[in-house]
Amino acid sequence: MRVKLTIQYDGSGYSGWQVQENARGVQNEIELALEKVLKEPIRLTGAGRTDKGVHALGQVAHFDAETIIPADKLRYHLNPKLPDDIRIIRSEEVSELFHARYSALSKHYEYTIYIGEHQPPQLRNYSTHLEKLPNLMLMNEAIPYLLGTHDFKAFMSTGSPVKSTERTLDRLEIKYQEPFLSFHYEAESFLYNMVRILTGTLVQIGEGKTDILRLVRALEEGERDLAGPTMGAQGLTLVSIQYPKGG
Amino acid sequence: MRVKLTIQYDGSGYSGWQVQENARGVQNEIELALEKVLKEPIRLTGAGRTDKGVHALGQVAHFDAETIIPADKLRYHLNPKLPDDIRIIRSEEVSELFHARYSALSKHYEYTIYIGEHQPPQLRNYSTHLEKLPNLMLMNEAIPYLLGTHDFKAFMSTGSPVKSTERTLDRLEIKYQEPFLSFHYEAESFLYNMVRILTGTLVQIGEGKTDILRLVRALEEGERDLAGPTMGAQGLTLVSIQYPKGG
Repeated sequence: MRVKLTIQYDGSGYSGWQVQENARGVQNEIELALEKVLKEPIRLTGAGRTDKGVHALGQVAHFDAETIIPADKLRYHLNPKLPDDIRIIRSEEVSELFHARYSALSKHYEYTIYIGEHQPPQLRNYSTHLEKLPNLMLMNEAIPYLLGTHDFKAFMSTGSPVKSTERTLDRLEIKYQEPFLSFHYEAESFLYNMVRILTGTLVQIGEGKTDILRLVRALEEGERDLAGPTMGAQGLTLVSIQYPKGG
Repeated sequence: MRVKLTIQYDGSGYSGWQVQENARGVQNEIELALEKVLKEPIRLTGAGRTDKGVHALGQVAHFDAETIIPADKLRYHLNPKLPDDIRIIRSEEVSELFHARYSALSKHYEYTIYIGEHQPPQLRNYSTHLEKLPNLMLMNEAIPYLLGTHDFKAFMSTGSPVKSTERTLDRLEIKYQEPFLSFHYEAESFLYNMVRILTGTLVQIGEGKTDILRLVRALEEGERDLAGPTMGAQGLTLVSIQYPKGG
Protein backbone atom coordinates (compact mmCIF):
# COMPACT_ATOMS: atom_id res chain seq x y z
CA MET A 1 0.00 0.00 0.00
CA ARG A 2 1.28 3.44 -0.95
CA VAL A 3 0.58 6.33 1.43
CA LYS A 4 0.84 10.07 0.73
CA LEU A 5 1.64 12.41 3.64
CA THR A 6 1.11 16.18 3.67
CA ILE A 7 3.51 17.77 6.14
CA GLN A 8 4.01 21.11 7.89
CA TYR A 9 7.26 21.94 9.65
CA ASP A 10 9.13 24.71 11.33
CA GLY A 11 12.54 24.35 9.68
CA SER A 12 14.38 26.44 12.33
CA GLY A 13 15.68 23.43 14.23
CA TYR A 14 16.61 21.23 11.25
CA SER A 15 19.44 20.82 8.76
CA GLY A 16 16.69 20.69 6.13
CA TRP A 17 14.42 17.98 4.76
CA GLN A 18 17.32 15.56 4.60
CA VAL A 19 19.93 14.77 7.23
CA GLN A 20 23.16 16.75 6.72
CA GLU A 21 26.39 16.33 8.70
CA ASN A 22 24.93 14.67 11.79
CA ALA A 23 22.26 17.38 12.21
CA ARG A 24 18.57 16.51 12.37
CA GLY A 25 16.60 16.17 9.15
CA VAL A 26 12.79 16.37 8.92
CA GLN A 27 12.58 13.25 6.73
CA ASN A 28 14.49 11.21 9.29
CA GLU A 29 12.21 12.30 12.16
CA ILE A 30 9.13 11.20 10.20
CA GLU A 31 10.73 7.86 9.24
CA LEU A 32 11.48 7.19 12.90
CA ALA A 33 7.88 7.99 13.89
CA LEU A 34 6.55 5.76 11.06
CA GLU A 35 8.71 2.86 12.20
CA LYS A 36 7.42 3.23 15.76
CA VAL A 37 3.80 3.17 14.56
CA LEU A 38 4.05 0.59 11.74
CA LYS A 39 6.73 -1.69 13.29
CA GLU A 40 8.60 -2.00 10.02
CA PRO A 41 11.45 -0.01 8.48
CA ILE A 42 10.08 2.77 6.24
CA ARG A 43 11.81 4.73 3.48
CA LEU A 44 10.17 8.06 2.81
CA THR A 45 10.35 9.79 -0.60
CA GLY A 46 9.87 13.54 -0.44
CA ALA A 47 8.65 15.82 -3.24
CA GLY A 48 11.92 17.70 -2.93
CA ARG A 49 14.49 18.83 -0.44
CA THR A 50 14.21 22.01 1.55
CA ASP A 51 17.36 23.67 2.91
CA LYS A 52 18.36 24.32 6.50
CA GLY A 53 15.96 26.82 8.09
CA VAL A 54 13.37 26.64 5.29
CA HIS A 55 9.77 25.98 6.41
CA ALA A 56 6.87 24.03 4.96
CA LEU A 57 3.10 24.37 5.12
CA GLY A 58 2.49 21.65 2.52
CA GLN A 59 5.49 19.41 1.91
CA VAL A 60 4.49 16.04 0.43
CA ALA A 61 6.11 12.61 0.76
CA HIS A 62 5.12 9.00 0.08
CA PHE A 63 6.09 5.56 1.35
CA ASP A 64 5.13 1.93 0.86
CA ALA A 65 4.21 -0.30 3.77
CA GLU A 66 3.05 -3.87 4.28
CA THR A 67 0.59 -3.74 7.11
CA ILE A 68 -0.99 -0.47 7.96
CA ILE A 69 -3.62 1.26 10.01
CA PRO A 70 -6.29 2.88 7.76
CA ALA A 71 -4.21 5.49 5.92
CA ASP A 72 -6.46 8.43 6.78
CA LYS A 73 -6.14 7.64 10.51
CA LEU A 74 -2.37 7.28 10.37
CA ARG A 75 -1.69 10.96 11.08
CA TYR A 76 -3.40 10.71 14.48
CA HIS A 77 -0.92 7.97 15.43
CA LEU A 78 2.09 9.74 13.95
CA ASN A 79 1.70 13.25 15.36
CA PRO A 80 2.08 12.26 19.04
CA LYS A 81 5.36 10.50 18.12
CA LEU A 82 6.76 13.53 16.24
CA PRO A 83 8.53 16.60 17.66
CA ASP A 84 6.09 19.50 17.96
CA ASP A 85 7.76 21.40 15.09
CA ILE A 86 6.61 18.72 12.59
CA ARG A 87 2.91 18.00 11.97
CA ILE A 88 1.30 15.58 9.51
CA ILE A 89 -1.86 17.36 8.38
CA ARG A 90 -3.07 14.68 5.97
CA SER A 91 -2.42 10.97 5.39
CA GLU A 92 -4.15 9.12 2.58
CA GLU A 93 -3.89 5.97 0.50
CA VAL A 94 -2.83 6.62 -3.10
CA SER A 95 -2.30 4.57 -6.25
CA GLU A 96 1.04 2.75 -6.70
CA LEU A 97 1.57 5.11 -9.65
CA PHE A 98 1.70 8.16 -7.37
CA HIS A 99 5.20 9.51 -6.76
CA ALA A 100 5.75 12.53 -4.45
CA ARG A 101 8.45 13.96 -6.74
CA TYR A 102 7.66 12.74 -10.27
CA SER A 103 3.87 13.22 -10.10
CA ALA A 104 4.14 16.83 -8.89
CA LEU A 105 2.62 19.33 -11.34
CA SER A 106 3.57 22.51 -9.55
CA LYS A 107 5.15 23.83 -6.35
CA HIS A 108 4.22 27.05 -4.59
CA TYR A 109 6.87 28.86 -2.54
CA GLU A 110 6.43 32.04 -0.51
CA TYR A 111 9.27 34.34 0.52
CA THR A 112 8.54 36.73 3.42
CA ILE A 113 10.33 39.95 4.41
CA TYR A 114 9.52 41.99 7.52
CA ILE A 115 9.53 45.71 6.68
CA GLY A 116 10.19 48.11 9.55
CA GLU A 117 12.83 49.58 11.80
CA HIS A 118 12.82 46.74 14.35
CA GLN A 119 12.05 43.18 13.35
CA PRO A 120 10.52 41.61 16.48
CA PRO A 121 12.70 38.70 17.64
CA GLN A 122 9.56 36.50 17.49
CA LEU A 123 9.86 36.72 13.68
CA ARG A 124 13.62 36.18 13.36
CA ASN A 125 13.27 32.58 12.18
CA TYR A 126 10.30 33.23 9.87
CA SER A 127 11.21 36.27 7.81
CA THR A 128 14.18 38.32 6.72
CA HIS A 129 14.35 42.00 7.56
CA LEU A 130 14.47 45.25 5.59
CA GLU A 131 14.08 48.65 7.20
CA LYS A 132 12.52 50.24 4.12
CA LEU A 133 9.97 48.96 1.63
CA PRO A 134 11.54 48.49 -1.82
CA ASN A 135 9.64 50.27 -4.63
CA LEU A 136 6.69 47.99 -5.46
CA MET A 137 6.17 49.48 -8.94
CA LEU A 138 9.76 48.83 -9.98
CA MET A 139 9.57 45.25 -8.71
CA ASN A 140 6.22 44.62 -10.42
CA GLU A 141 7.61 45.93 -13.72
CA ALA A 142 10.20 43.13 -13.63
CA ILE A 143 7.65 40.32 -13.26
CA PRO A 144 6.73 39.90 -16.98
CA TYR A 145 10.42 39.41 -17.82
CA LEU A 146 10.62 36.45 -15.43
CA LEU A 147 7.31 34.69 -16.09
CA GLY A 148 7.32 31.84 -18.61
CA THR A 149 10.13 29.61 -19.82
CA HIS A 150 13.71 30.87 -19.50
CA ASP A 151 17.20 29.65 -18.87
CA PHE A 152 17.49 30.56 -15.17
CA LYS A 153 21.16 29.57 -14.93
CA ALA A 154 22.11 32.97 -13.43
CA PHE A 155 19.55 32.35 -10.65
CA MET A 156 21.07 29.11 -9.38
CA SER A 157 23.62 28.40 -6.67
CA THR A 158 26.25 25.89 -7.60
CA GLY A 159 25.29 22.56 -6.08
CA SER A 160 24.29 19.21 -7.44
CA PRO A 161 24.57 19.20 -11.28
CA VAL A 162 21.35 19.51 -13.30
CA LYS A 163 20.65 18.36 -16.86
CA SER A 164 19.02 21.60 -17.87
CA THR A 165 18.80 25.06 -16.29
CA GLU A 166 15.63 25.90 -18.20
CA ARG A 167 12.56 26.32 -16.01
CA THR A 168 9.03 27.64 -16.47
CA LEU A 169 7.80 30.16 -13.92
CA ASP A 170 3.98 30.02 -13.90
CA ARG A 171 3.32 32.59 -11.20
CA LEU A 172 5.21 35.45 -9.61
CA GLU A 173 3.18 37.75 -7.39
CA ILE A 174 4.37 40.38 -4.94
CA LYS A 175 2.10 41.34 -2.04
CA TYR A 176 2.57 43.97 0.63
CA GLN A 177 0.40 43.62 3.69
CA GLU A 178 2.01 45.76 6.35
CA PRO A 179 4.47 44.86 7.84
CA PHE A 180 5.08 41.88 5.51
CA LEU A 181 6.33 41.94 1.94
CA SER A 182 5.80 38.53 0.36
CA PHE A 183 6.76 36.98 -2.96
CA HIS A 184 4.80 34.04 -4.38
CA TYR A 185 6.38 31.69 -6.92
CA GLU A 186 4.86 28.73 -8.73
CA ALA A 187 6.64 26.37 -11.10
CA GLU A 188 6.84 22.65 -11.84
CA SER A 189 10.35 22.73 -10.46
CA PHE A 190 12.98 25.23 -9.38
CA LEU A 191 16.77 25.34 -9.59
CA TYR A 192 18.82 25.24 -6.39
CA ASN A 193 18.24 28.52 -4.45
CA MET A 194 16.30 29.94 -7.41
CA VAL A 195 13.50 31.43 -5.27
CA ARG A 196 15.96 33.05 -2.87
CA ILE A 197 18.07 34.52 -5.70
CA LEU A 198 15.03 35.75 -7.66
CA THR A 199 13.81 37.47 -4.48
CA GLY A 200 17.23 39.01 -3.88
CA THR A 201 17.24 40.32 -7.46
CA LEU A 202 13.73 41.77 -7.22
CA VAL A 203 14.57 43.48 -3.92
CA GLN A 204 17.65 45.06 -5.49
CA ILE A 205 15.52 46.28 -8.39
CA GLY A 206 13.05 47.78 -5.87
CA GLU A 207 15.94 49.44 -4.05
CA GLY A 208 17.34 50.89 -7.27
CA LYS A 209 20.57 48.90 -6.88
CA THR A 210 20.04 47.08 -10.16
CA ASP A 211 17.55 47.34 -13.02
CA ILE A 212 15.54 45.39 -15.58
CA LEU A 213 18.26 45.74 -18.24
CA ARG A 214 20.65 43.84 -16.02
CA LEU A 215 17.91 41.29 -15.19
CA VAL A 216 17.42 40.66 -18.90
CA ARG A 217 21.17 40.24 -19.33
CA ALA A 218 21.19 37.73 -16.44
CA LEU A 219 18.53 35.69 -18.24
CA GLU A 220 20.35 35.91 -21.59
CA GLU A 221 23.95 35.46 -20.46
CA GLY A 222 23.38 33.12 -17.50
CA GLU A 223 26.06 34.76 -15.35
CA ARG A 224 25.41 34.42 -11.60
CA ASP A 225 27.06 37.85 -11.01
CA LEU A 226 24.33 39.58 -12.99
CA ALA A 227 21.62 38.38 -10.57
CA GLY A 228 21.08 39.58 -6.99
CA PRO A 229 22.11 38.02 -3.68
CA THR A 230 20.69 34.80 -2.20
CA MET A 231 18.21 35.86 0.46
CA GLY A 232 18.31 34.11 3.86
CA ALA A 233 16.65 30.70 4.23
CA GLN A 234 14.45 31.74 7.17
CA GLY A 235 12.10 33.77 4.92
CA LEU A 236 11.29 30.82 2.67
CA THR A 237 8.26 28.52 2.97
CA LEU A 238 7.15 25.66 0.73
CA VAL A 239 3.41 26.45 0.75
CA SER A 240 1.90 23.63 -1.31
CA ILE A 241 2.43 21.13 -4.11
CA GLN A 242 -0.15 20.41 -6.81
CA TYR A 243 -0.77 16.88 -8.13
CA PRO A 244 -3.16 15.58 -10.79
CA LYS A 245 -6.71 15.02 -9.47
CA GLY A 246 -6.84 11.82 -7.46
CA GLY A 247 -3.02 11.78 -7.22
CA MET B 1 22.38 58.69 35.30
CA ARG B 2 19.09 56.83 34.87
CA VAL B 3 18.50 54.98 31.61
CA LYS B 4 15.20 53.65 30.22
CA LEU B 5 15.30 50.60 27.94
CA THR B 6 12.50 49.48 25.60
CA ILE B 7 12.80 45.76 24.99
CA GLN B 8 11.40 43.13 22.62
CA TYR B 9 11.75 39.44 23.34
CA ASP B 10 10.66 36.04 22.20
CA GLY B 11 9.66 34.48 25.51
CA SER B 12 9.73 30.88 24.17
CA GLY B 13 13.17 30.11 25.55
CA TYR B 14 12.83 31.83 28.93
CA SER B 15 11.38 31.15 32.37
CA GLY B 16 9.91 34.64 32.08
CA TRP B 17 11.17 38.16 32.76
CA GLN B 18 12.75 36.99 36.01
CA VAL B 19 14.91 33.96 36.68
CA GLN B 20 12.92 31.02 38.04
CA GLU B 21 14.33 27.71 39.29
CA ASN B 22 17.68 27.88 37.50
CA ALA B 23 16.05 28.59 34.12
CA ARG B 24 17.03 31.64 32.07
CA GLY B 25 15.28 34.95 32.72
CA VAL B 26 15.18 37.85 30.26
CA GLN B 27 16.14 40.40 32.94
CA ASN B 28 19.25 38.43 33.85
CA GLU B 29 20.41 38.23 30.22
CA ILE B 30 20.12 42.01 29.86
CA GLU B 31 21.92 42.64 33.17
CA LEU B 32 24.79 40.42 31.99
CA ALA B 33 25.02 42.32 28.68
CA LEU B 34 24.91 45.68 30.51
CA GLU B 35 27.75 44.62 32.82
CA LYS B 36 29.86 43.60 29.83
CA VAL B 37 29.31 46.97 28.15
CA LEU B 38 29.40 49.28 31.21
CA LYS B 39 32.00 47.36 33.27
CA GLU B 40 29.99 47.78 36.47
CA PRO B 41 27.33 45.64 38.15
CA ILE B 42 23.84 46.73 37.05
CA ARG B 43 20.48 46.07 38.67
CA LEU B 44 17.60 46.35 36.21
CA THR B 45 14.06 47.28 37.31
CA GLY B 46 11.35 46.05 34.95
CA ALA B 47 7.86 47.52 34.51
CA GLY B 48 6.48 44.16 35.49
CA ARG B 49 7.12 40.47 35.21
CA THR B 50 6.03 38.39 32.29
CA ASP B 51 5.50 34.64 32.72
CA LYS B 52 7.31 31.74 31.08
CA GLY B 53 6.60 31.73 27.34
CA VAL B 54 5.03 35.23 27.27
CA HIS B 55 6.46 37.63 24.66
CA ALA B 56 7.13 41.35 24.57
CA LEU B 57 7.16 43.97 21.84
CA GLY B 58 7.55 46.86 24.28
CA GLN B 59 8.69 45.81 27.76
CA VAL B 60 10.32 48.68 29.67
CA ALA B 61 13.04 48.66 32.33
CA HIS B 62 15.37 51.20 33.93
CA PHE B 63 18.74 51.17 35.66
CA ASP B 64 21.22 53.60 37.19
CA ALA B 65 24.85 53.67 36.14
CA GLU B 66 27.94 55.71 36.96
CA THR B 67 29.84 56.05 33.74
CA ILE B 68 28.04 55.49 30.54
CA ILE B 69 28.19 55.70 26.78
CA PRO B 70 25.61 58.22 25.44
CA ALA B 71 22.33 56.59 26.47
CA ASP B 72 20.79 56.67 22.99
CA LYS B 73 23.81 54.80 21.58
CA LEU B 74 23.78 52.16 24.30
CA ARG B 75 21.44 49.80 22.42
CA TYR B 76 23.94 49.44 19.58
CA HIS B 77 26.51 48.18 22.10
CA LEU B 78 24.04 45.96 23.97
CA ASN B 79 22.33 44.12 21.10
CA PRO B 80 25.45 42.30 19.85
CA LYS B 81 26.01 41.01 23.41
CA LEU B 82 22.43 39.74 23.78
CA PRO B 83 20.94 36.43 22.58
CA ASP B 84 19.08 36.96 19.28
CA ASP B 85 15.70 36.44 20.96
CA ILE B 86 16.13 39.67 22.99
CA ARG B 87 16.46 43.09 21.28
CA ILE B 88 16.76 46.54 22.84
CA ILE B 89 14.84 48.80 20.46
CA ARG B 90 15.38 52.05 22.37
CA SER B 91 17.74 53.33 25.06
CA GLU B 92 17.40 56.84 26.43
CA GLU B 93 18.39 58.97 29.39
CA VAL B 94 15.49 59.79 31.73
CA SER B 95 14.95 61.85 34.87
CA GLU B 96 15.85 60.27 38.24
CA LEU B 97 12.11 60.47 38.97
CA PHE B 98 11.30 57.98 36.21
CA HIS B 99 10.50 54.49 37.46
CA ALA B 100 9.71 51.67 35.00
CA ARG B 101 7.01 50.26 37.27
CA TYR B 102 5.65 53.17 39.30
CA SER B 103 5.59 55.74 36.50
CA ALA B 104 3.65 53.48 34.12
CA LEU B 105 0.24 54.91 33.18
CA SER B 106 -1.05 51.99 31.15
CA LYS B 107 -0.03 48.62 29.75
CA HIS B 108 -1.26 47.12 26.50
CA TYR B 109 -1.43 43.32 26.17
CA GLU B 110 -2.48 41.33 23.11
CA TYR B 111 -3.69 37.74 23.19
CA THR B 112 -3.56 35.83 19.87
CA ILE B 113 -5.43 32.68 18.84
CA TYR B 114 -4.89 30.86 15.54
CA ILE B 115 -8.24 29.80 14.07
CA GLY B 116 -8.23 26.86 11.66
CA GLU B 117 -8.02 23.10 11.39
CA HIS B 118 -4.20 22.93 11.47
CA GLN B 119 -2.12 25.45 13.38
CA PRO B 120 1.20 25.59 11.48
CA PRO B 121 4.04 24.48 13.79
CA GLN B 122 5.76 27.81 12.96
CA LEU B 123 3.08 29.48 15.13
CA ARG B 124 3.09 27.02 18.04
CA ASN B 125 5.07 29.35 20.34
CA TYR B 126 3.21 32.54 19.32
CA SER B 127 -0.48 31.71 19.45
CA THR B 128 -2.90 29.22 20.93
CA HIS B 129 -5.14 27.18 18.66
CA LEU B 130 -8.87 26.83 18.13
CA GLU B 131 -10.37 24.91 15.22
CA LYS B 132 -13.51 27.06 15.06
CA LEU B 133 -14.01 30.80 15.42
CA PRO B 134 -16.02 31.60 18.57
CA ASN B 135 -19.09 33.79 17.95
CA LEU B 136 -17.76 37.35 17.67
CA MET B 137 -21.12 38.98 18.43
CA LEU B 138 -21.52 37.07 21.70
CA MET B 139 -17.97 37.98 22.76
CA ASN B 140 -18.44 41.63 21.83
CA GLU B 141 -21.66 41.78 23.87
CA ALA B 142 -19.63 40.91 26.96
CA ILE B 143 -17.13 43.76 26.57
CA PRO B 144 -19.20 46.56 28.21
CA TYR B 145 -19.57 44.41 31.35
CA LEU B 146 -15.79 44.19 31.72
CA LEU B 147 -14.71 47.73 30.83
CA GLY B 148 -14.20 50.18 33.70
CA THR B 149 -13.48 49.57 37.38
CA HIS B 150 -14.40 46.20 38.87
CA ASP B 151 -13.24 43.71 41.44
CA PHE B 152 -11.52 41.22 39.12
CA LYS B 153 -10.81 38.72 41.92
CA ALA B 154 -12.45 35.87 39.94
CA PHE B 155 -10.04 36.59 37.08
CA MET B 156 -6.85 36.08 39.05
CA SER B 157 -4.66 33.03 39.59
CA THR B 158 -3.50 32.49 43.14
CA GLY B 159 0.05 33.76 43.42
CA SER B 160 1.71 36.58 45.26
CA PRO B 161 -0.78 38.38 47.55
CA VAL B 162 -2.16 41.75 46.39
CA LYS B 163 -3.59 44.59 48.49
CA SER B 164 -6.63 45.04 46.28
CA THR B 165 -8.17 43.00 43.48
CA GLU B 166 -9.88 46.05 42.02
CA ARG B 167 -8.61 47.05 38.58
CA THR B 168 -9.73 49.43 35.83
CA LEU B 169 -9.90 48.04 32.32
CA ASP B 170 -9.59 50.97 29.89
CA ARG B 171 -9.73 49.03 26.62
CA LEU B 172 -10.94 45.63 25.51
CA GLU B 173 -11.11 45.09 21.78
CA ILE B 174 -11.57 41.87 19.84
CA LYS B 175 -10.26 41.67 16.27
CA TYR B 176 -10.54 38.89 13.74
CA GLN B 177 -8.15 39.08 10.83
CA GLU B 178 -8.12 35.61 9.30
CA PRO B 179 -6.56 33.35 10.56
CA PHE B 180 -5.90 35.30 13.79
CA LEU B 181 -8.34 36.18 16.54
CA SER B 182 -6.76 38.76 18.84
CA PHE B 183 -7.81 40.39 22.10
CA HIS B 184 -6.42 43.78 23.11
CA TYR B 185 -6.40 44.85 26.76
CA GLU B 186 -5.26 48.12 28.31
CA ALA B 187 -5.13 48.96 32.00
CA GLU B 188 -2.83 50.68 34.47
CA SER B 189 -2.15 47.27 35.96
CA PHE B 190 -3.47 43.73 35.78
CA LEU B 191 -3.89 40.93 38.33
CA TYR B 192 -1.85 37.74 37.96
CA ASN B 193 -3.01 35.88 34.81
CA MET B 194 -5.91 38.33 34.42
CA VAL B 195 -5.50 38.73 30.64
CA ARG B 196 -5.28 34.97 30.09
CA ILE B 197 -8.36 34.27 32.26
CA LEU B 198 -10.40 37.10 30.70
CA THR B 199 -9.56 35.67 27.26
CA GLY B 200 -10.51 32.16 28.38
CA THR B 201 -13.84 33.49 29.66
CA LEU B 202 -14.60 35.45 26.47
CA VAL B 203 -13.77 32.42 24.31
CA GLN B 204 -16.16 30.27 26.38
CA ILE B 205 -18.86 32.91 25.94
CA GLY B 206 -18.21 32.86 22.17
CA GLU B 207 -18.42 29.07 22.17
CA GLY B 208 -21.70 29.10 24.09
CA LYS B 209 -20.11 27.26 27.04
CA THR B 210 -20.85 30.10 29.44
CA ASP B 211 -22.80 33.36 29.25
CA ILE B 212 -22.89 36.98 30.35
CA LEU B 213 -25.03 36.19 33.41
CA ARG B 214 -22.26 33.97 34.73
CA LEU B 215 -19.67 36.61 33.82
CA VAL B 216 -21.58 39.19 35.88
CA ARG B 217 -21.75 36.74 38.79
CA ALA B 218 -17.97 36.23 38.51
CA LEU B 219 -17.46 40.00 38.83
CA GLU B 220 -19.92 40.26 41.74
CA GLU B 221 -19.02 37.13 43.71
CA GLY B 222 -15.28 36.95 42.93
CA GLU B 223 -15.26 33.15 42.64
CA ARG B 224 -12.52 31.83 40.32
CA ASP B 225 -14.81 28.91 39.31
CA LEU B 226 -17.27 31.32 37.71
CA ALA B 227 -14.65 32.58 35.23
CA GLY B 228 -13.18 30.65 32.29
CA PRO B 229 -9.90 28.77 31.96
CA THR B 230 -6.43 30.35 31.90
CA MET B 231 -5.35 30.43 28.25
CA GLY B 232 -1.82 29.27 27.38
CA ALA B 233 1.09 31.69 27.88
CA GLN B 234 2.35 31.40 24.28
CA GLY B 235 -0.51 33.53 22.92
CA LEU B 236 0.27 36.50 25.18
CA THR B 237 2.36 39.55 24.23
CA LEU B 238 3.12 42.69 26.23
CA VAL B 239 2.72 45.17 23.37
CA SER B 240 3.58 48.51 24.97
CA ILE B 241 3.63 50.57 28.17
CA GLN B 242 2.54 54.19 28.33
CA TYR B 243 4.35 56.77 30.48
CA PRO B 244 3.74 60.49 31.05
CA LYS B 245 5.20 62.70 28.28
CA GLY B 246 8.91 63.01 28.78
CA GLY B 247 8.93 60.02 31.15
